Amino acid sequence: MSDAAPAGHSKTGRLFGLGVGPGDPELITLKALRRLREAPVVAHFAARGKAGNALTIIEGYLAPEQCVQPLIYPVTTENLPPPFCYETALANFYDESAAVVAAHLDAGRDVAVVCEGDPFLYGSFMYLHDRLAERYETEVTPGVCAMLGCASVLGTPLVYRNQTLSVISGVLPADELKRRLADSDAAAIMKLGSNFAKVRGVLTELGLLERAHYVERATMANQRIAPLAGIDPATVPYFAMILVPGARWAA
Amino acid sequence: MSDAAPAGHSKTGRLFGLGVGPGDPELITLKALRRLREAPVVAHFAARGKAGNALTIIEGYLAPEQCVQPLIYPVTTENLPPPFCYETALANFYDESAAVVAAHLDAGRDVAVVCEGDPFLYGSFMYLHDRLAERYETEVTPGVCAMLGCASVLGTPLVYRNQTLSVISGVLPADELKRRLADSDAAAIMKLGSNFAKVRGVLTELGLLERAHYVERATMANQRIAPLAGIDPATVPYFAMILVPGARWAA
Repeated sequence: MSDAAPAGHSKTGRLFGLGVGPGDPELITLKALRRLREAPVVAHFAARGKAGNALTIIEGYLAPEQCVQPLIYPVTTENLPPPFCYETALANFYDESAAVVAAHLDAGRDVAVVCEGDPFLYGSFMYLHDRLAERYETEVTPGVCAMLGCASVLGTPLVYRNQTLSVISGVLPADELKRRLADSDAAAIMKLGSNFAKVRGVLTELGLLERAHYVERATMANQRIAPLAGIDPATVPYFAMILVPGARWAA
Repeated sequence: MSDAAPAGHSKTGRLFGLGVGPGDPELITLKALRRLREAPVVAHFAARGKAGNALTIIEGYLAPEQCVQPLIYPVTTENLPPPFCYETALANFYDESAAVVAAHLDAGRDVAVVCEGDPFLYGSFMYLHDRLAERYETEVTPGVCAMLGCASVLGTPLVYRNQTLSVISGVLPADELKRRLADSDAAAIMKLGSNFAKVRGVLTELGLLERAHYVERATMANQRIAPLAGIDPATVPYFAMILVPGARWAA
């Protein structure tokens, strides 16, 4: 991989998806840090006007000579009035982002896409991967996912022995959430934000409120752990999570 | 935490549960490596006569002056003839292991328990945590779990958007496995070993064989990726995994 390109041929760059962990910069792996430092171009997803969590996590590791390439999400929501379509807006955005990254790769520059948590667990990097991995040499470095960051700061074992763990999106409708949570030994509920009140309602109905733990921005400097019952739904960020740990095995 | 103990009092040690990642020593986090190097005592679980995966992962990071404390599993299986009881044997083992660790802590020595993957996701550390965390200062450092190590080496995104991911033990009965897999958008099936033939049978019945990927010892030097259909069940180690990634979102 480090061989010089044959004379007269330009060698394309390599695409790296780097999981940078749940928030604490020290929870990056040695390998992700090495790949990050070796990359001439560091790309990251962010909302307009915001720094982006992945960049915030790793910016202390960047050198001045590295190119930082933002990929800025379109301002949209999942519920748009016709004729606008969320899926189309996002697909266009990922097409454009892939083209931006591909331009660096075509110019022979390796690109490291930094991803909060892990690149393959609900990460935006997956959409770049689906568009680029067949055309460019691609490597993914896994990361500590948010769910395990949450369990560590709560100090709660997540699943024992042969318990089933369900990783569930809070975006799902209430009846679907209820059905899935009722059938899980343990659960991690992601993507809370405006879905929080619905999710808490379902947990209350199922009698799971006492077993459930709420964490915002686990392992980050502004982490917040608070009883679920007292949370003001208006304050819940998208990067909050609810964990329902499996029942302790008495062995 | 680093304050000197008051004169006349002996200060007890601190308990650290360290996730050391799925196998590649470079997939340890900076924080776990720091905690590991700071610890005078490094404890690890292993089967009798075997080095233990967690120790194998981190032994290159150890210094000669560190005490390595093995915690050796009893030779047993989940199906013992009466009057022997697997649960009792394991409970006794975890009680004894906790006592061994507690003796170091009582002597004022910090103990780092190294855990393959993450400490709170099906790890033996959980049973030490349940016995010791209320008596000693305890901190858990999360790690990259095996499931995400597998997805990275397969190069397959695991879950898109609002898909539900089920993390399932292969020990479950066939009908239970079938019911859970049929209701999952994506799945990770752990604890294969002697359960492999049963699990593959269920995947075949559900028509999921084409979507399922098989990996042994992901990210380790002796990693093996092979088509599920051709695997000899007699060769499957306990630390193998089957991933059924979620259907690609076309955006």
